[in-house]
Amino acid sequence: MDKVFFGIDIGGTATKLGAFSAEGKLLDKWEIPTDTGEHGSRIMPNIAAEIVRYADTTENVIAAGVGVPGPVRRDGYVRRCVNLGWGGFNPARDLSAQLEGVPTFAGNDANMAAMGEYWQGGGQDARSLVFITLGTGVGGGIVLDGRVVYGSAGLGGEIGHVVVNPDEPMPCNCGQYGCLDQTASATGVVRHARRVLARRTDEPSALRALDAITARDVFDAAKAGDALAYEAVDTCMGFLGKSMAMLTNIIDPDMYIIGGGVSKAGEFLIDLVRRHYEQLATLSEQRAKIALATLGNDAGIYGAAKLAMDAVRR
Amino acid sequence: MDKVFFGIDIGGTATKLGAFSAEGKLLDKWEIPTDTGEHGSRIMPNIAAEIVRYADTTENVIAAGVGVPGPVRRDGYVRRCVNLGWGGFNPARDLSAQLEGVPTFAGNDANMAAMGEYWQGGGQDARSLVFITLGTGVGGGIVLDGRVVYGSAGLGGEIGHVVVNPDEPMPCNCGQYGCLDQTASATGVVRHARRVLARRTDEPSALRALDAITARDVFDAAKAGDALAYEAVDTCMGFLGKSMAMLTNIIDPDMYIIGGGVSKAGEFLIDLVRRHYEQLATLSEQRAKIALATLGNDAGIYGAAKLAMDAVRR
Repeated sequence: MDKVFFGIDIGGTATKLGAFSAEGKLLDKWEIPTDTGEHGSRIMPNIAAEIVRYADTTENVIAAGVGVPGPVRRDGYVRRCVNLGWGGFNPARDLSAQLEGVPTFAGNDANMAAMGEYWQGGGQDARSLVFITLGTGVGGGIVLDGRVVYGSAGLGGEIGHVVVNPDEPMPCNCGQYGCLDQTASATGVVRHARRVLARRTDEPSALRALDAITARDVFDAAKAGDALAYEAVDTCMGFLGKSMAMLTNIIDPDMYIIGGGVSKAGEFLIDLVRRHYEQLATLSEQRAKIALATLGNDAGIYGAAKLAMDAVRR
Repeated sequence: MDKVFFGIDIGGTATKLGAFSAEGKLLDKWEIPTDTGEHGSRIMPNIAAEIVRYADTTENVIAAGVGVPGPVRRDGYVRRCVNLGWGGFNPARDLSAQLEGVPTFAGNDANMAAMGEYWQGGGQDARSLVFITLGTGVGGGIVLDGRVVYGSAGLGGEIGHVVVNPDEPMPCNCGQYGCLDQTASATGVVRHARRVLARRTDEPSALRALDAITARDVFDAAKAGDALAYEAVDTCMGFLGKSMAMLTNIIDPDMYIIGGGVSKAGEFLIDLVRRHYEQLATLSEQRAKIALATLGNDAGIYGAAKLAMDAVRR
C-alpha cells in the first residue's frame, strides 16, 4: 500500500481515525469507542492497534497527529485531561513509542479542527483565521500563517472564556461571570430563551408549547418569525459578535469560521453575528470574513493529519 | 565602515533613528523632528538623508525597519495615518526607493516596541509575549515564536480597545464603552482618581491639594498609603489584569511586558496587576510572567531593526 498519514480525534466517548494520502486526500475514516477505564491507559494502545491493522506495518505510516479534548502543550504534554482520565501524560510520545517511532504530534481538539478548516474546510482562502465551535460549550482555535497558536500552557484559542456579558448573574464553570461559553453555546441559547420567556409572560411564543427547549428549537422559531425566540438568538449571537470584535483588535484574522452543532442554523446565524460584529469592530474599515465550517465532525482528523504533515516536512 | 542595520521609530513630533551592527548591537541613536507638513511627504526623504549621512553610501546599509504610529499591513501599506498626514502610502517601499533599493520593512510602532522588548528587553526569556504600553492611551503588540502578529488590516495587538469595564459611562474614541484604553492609560488613571475623589468627598486624600492631577501623582499617593488614590490605581490595574486574563485564554503567552510612561510606577504597579491577573486567569495553573519593559523609548528602534534583520535573513 501507499504510505499514509493518520489524523486522530479523541473524544470522551468515541475516537475518530482518518487515513490520508501523502498528498492530503482523506482515504478512509472510521470510529472506535474511547475506553476511558483505568485512567485512560488503554486509549493509546487501542489507537495504535487500529493504525497497525489498517497500515499492515508501521513502515507505511509517515506520521500521525492526535487531537485531545483538553489543553495540550506544544511538546505534546497533557497536564490533565478530565474527560479521558489522563494526568501528566504525553500521548504523542506514547503513541510514537507504540508505533516503533512513527513521528507523532498532538494538539487540542478544537485547535486541530481550526487547522482542518484552514486546510481543507471553510477557511481555505484565509491566511489567518479564528475557528469558533458552538456546541454544548464554546471552543475555538487560532491559525496564524498556517500555524496553530498553542499557547504557553496549551490554552491558545480557548475563547469560550472571554468575558462578554457583564450582566450574567450565574457563574461560569471557570469561575468568571459572563463568558462567551455561557451565551453562545447550545446551553447558553436555551438559557437565554428561557429568560426571555420568563420576563415577557404576556407575549406569545411557539416555544411555550414545548416540553423541553433545544437550541435548534429556538433558532427554528426565530427563523419562523417568533419575536421572543428572535430576541434570544439575537442577544446570544450579539455576544458572539462582540467577542469577535475584540479578537479583531487583538489578532485581526482574515476570517472567522463558525462550526459546531449550533452552527447548523446556517446563514441565518452568520447574518446575525455579522451584523453585530460589523457594528462593534470599529477600528478597521476592512472587516474579516465570517463563514460556516464545512468539514463538520471530520475537521479534527483533517487538522490532526495536517499537524503531522507540517511537522515532518518542516 | 562596517555594514549596519537601521531601526527607525516615527512619532508625531520626533523620529528616532538607531544604527545597529550586523550582530544587533546598538551603535548610535539620535532624533530628528518629524516634519508632518505637506501630508507628511517630507518624512521619508528626511529619514533617507539621515541614513545616507550616517552610512556614507547605501552600500553600507544592510536593511532598514520603520515603526509607524498607526496600523501597518504586513506588506508595509498604510491605509491612513492621521498623526503623520499619510493616506494610501507604503513608507517601506518609498524609503527603499530613496535608498537605491535597500530592503526596507515597516510595522506599527507598538508592535515594533513589542519586538524590541522580545529581542533585547524585558522579554528575552519568552518564546511568546504580549507587550502593553500604558501612555496617554494604551497600545500593544504581540510576538509569537519570534514573529509579530500584524493582523489582516494591521490591527494586531491593538489591545487598548478590548472592552473591560462594562460600567464606563463615557464613550471611547473608538465608539465603544469601557475600553482598556479608558482605564489603564495615564488619562484613565487620572479620570478614575477624579471619580473616586468626587464620590467620597468625606474622606481625606493628598490628591485634593493638587491643582492638576497626573497619573504619577495618583501612583505616588497610592504608594504613600493614600486610600483613595490606592482605590483608583487598584481599579485601573484590575482592568488591566482582566484584559490579560482574557488574552491568556486567547493566545496564552509566556509573558506580559508592561511599558509606557505609567509603568514608571514600577514593581508596585506590577504587583497590583499580577494580583488581579492571577485571580482571573482561572483556566491555567501555569501563570504567565509579568515584567516591566526595560528599553524605554528605544524599544521601537530595536524592534524595527530586528524586523529588518529577520526579514533579510529568512
